[in-house]
Amino acid sequence: MNRLLITGSIALDSVKTPIEEHQDMLGGSASYAAVAASFFVPVNMVGIVGSDFPAEYRALYEKFSIDLDGLEVADGPTFRWSGEYEWDLNNRRTLSIALNVFETFLPKLPEAYRETPYVFLANIAPQLQMHVLEQVTRPKFIVADTMDLWIETTRDDLMELLTKIDCLVLNDSETREFTKETSLIKAARQILKWGPKYVVVKKGEHGCLLFGEDLFFSAPAYPLEDIHDPTGAGDCFAGAMAGYLAKHDRLDHDTLRRAVVYGSALASFNVEAFSLGRLQSLTPEHIEERYQLFKLMSQFEMK
Amino acid sequence: MNRLLITGSIALDSVKTPIEEHQDMLGGSASYAAVAASFFVPVNMVGIVGSDFPAEYRALYEKFSIDLDGLEVADGPTFRWSGEYEWDLNNRRTLSIALNVFETFLPKLPEAYRETPYVFLANIAPQLQMHVLEQVTRPKFIVADTMDLWIETTRDDLMELLTKIDCLVLNDSETREFTKETSLIKAARQILKWGPKYVVVKKGEHGCLLFGEDLFFSAPAYPLEDIHDPTGAGDCFAGAMAGYLAKHDRLDHDTLRRAVVYGSALASFNVEAFSLGRLQSLTPEHIEERYQLFKLMSQFEMK
Repeated sequence: MNRLLITGSIALDSVKTPIEEHQDMLGGSASYAAVAASFFVPVNMVGIVGSDFPAEYRALYEKFSIDLDGLEVADGPTFRWSGEYEWDLNNRRTLSIALNVFETFLPKLPEAYRETPYVFLANIAPQLQMHVLEQVTRPKFIVADTMDLWIETTRDDLMELLTKIDCLVLNDSETREFTKETSLIKAARQILKWGPKYVVVKKGEHGCLLFGEDLFFSAPAYPLEDIHDPTGAGDCFAGAMAGYLAKHDRLDHDTLRRAVVYGSALASFNVEAFSLGRLQSLTPEHIEERYQLFKLMSQFEMK
Repeated sequence: MNRLLITGSIALDSVKTPIEEHQDMLGGSASYAAVAASFFVPVNMVGIVGSDFPAEYRALYEKFSIDLDGLEVADGPTFRWSGEYEWDLNNRRTLSIALNVFETFLPKLPEAYRETPYVFLANIAPQLQMHVLEQVTRPKFIVADTMDLWIETTRDDLMELLTKIDCLVLNDSETREFTKETSLIKAARQILKWGPKYVVVKKGEHGCLLFGEDLFFSAPAYPLEDIHDPTGAGDCFAGAMAGYLAKHDRLDHDTLRRAVVYGSALASFNVEAFSLGRLQSLTPEHIEERYQLFKLMSQFEMK
């Protein structure tokens, strides 16, 4: 079976919502993406942690058969992030960031990782994403995520990255900020001109949109009554999407559509608990059941 | 074939966008709804205009085979509304409202209208909507639209109306305001408890949601690059939805889903030009073609 290479951040997160507060949970874009993707394919993870990284979190990765040969353990403390959500959980405020060992991270791919055919560059600086990419010998499909910070501070790097990837994933406000277009349709078309064959615009509670040449697909969001922690939903989405593509090893439009729906399903599970809590009790049957619910809630010409 | 009874406002609209400005165009919730519905069924319209109502607008209704026996012509000027859209066309500012003949409107149904089986109460004061409803002898399915103004000023009337209708249509911000719930899922569930069997939440560029007992359907919005005038989109949506149901005379979930998609299709056409400009050149073939595009952009398990 194909493997999926994932790089991104690994963090100890402290998250506060109006109802709960948790300290030093496993977080980071690579953690969420890798665990979500592992439901579809074996994952090779590239990242860095500090000497204080808890053994239980390492064990958690291993439980999901995530290969850790690419996980560097450096002297010093692990990257830490803390944030707070407002009462409606739509707005997030970053309370503190400590890059720690991440500051000097220069990802090195183990020899065995270089031929991984599918690659997901989870959200980190575009320069680091490119550095990983340069070490992959013959990638078949490359998905990259990004965020407002990189659009604002390292735009040139991001533009260069776009010429090297197949699919960019970003959220709606970032899409508008990046292109200065209010219409998401025009914005996505602009991004396609900059390089990638596909763009996925994540719209949170409104689902997501997949754009490509001759391809437009609108996926709904799963109607959750109670969201406990939105952290990592986008990472789970993109990780699962890339994992689904790697598993099926096909890139036709129908497979891409289904990958987006499976991504949405994993994201919808992830927000049901803090950190990776929900994904730890998840089974393939749960995922399949939710996929069927996505079908039921968006299809209107059923036989 | 079943007929559809529509009541609502008839207005002369003056609309300003950053690009264009037009005076005294045909507008009002009943106008948009009736013309959109007329693509599916013959419409009986109940409304009021002033003695200044242009003959060409009357002719426009007639072109769409809208029955005007319920159209009262009163002494005085027609209801006028003027509004302005910001550059992204998402935010509307009302510049002026002159109720004129509408102020003393007390809808009277012609005898021949009383047995119309399907009813759409387009956006007007809930008290007027109820007054129309009381004159219908044996309605089979009643859809009602409303707006923030009535939620804020005539909440008791609106709550009473809810106990008499089958389906309420309103937009997302109104849904939240009405129920004081941020989650649209919780909000819709609350409204269902207040009476109607179905609630449709319109989300503009994000499509719409249909809720009922054991029913959740998420319809995408058509990806328009250029919107010329959003006025009346919601009225066209609900009018076409009710028209589709009346035409097929079935109320199962599959028919309801399709009705929502046809409503979305009509709304997407309407915003392509000012007033009813686009609907005037529309053909059933255009509608069918767009319906197929809705299918293409939201289906992911096609045979």
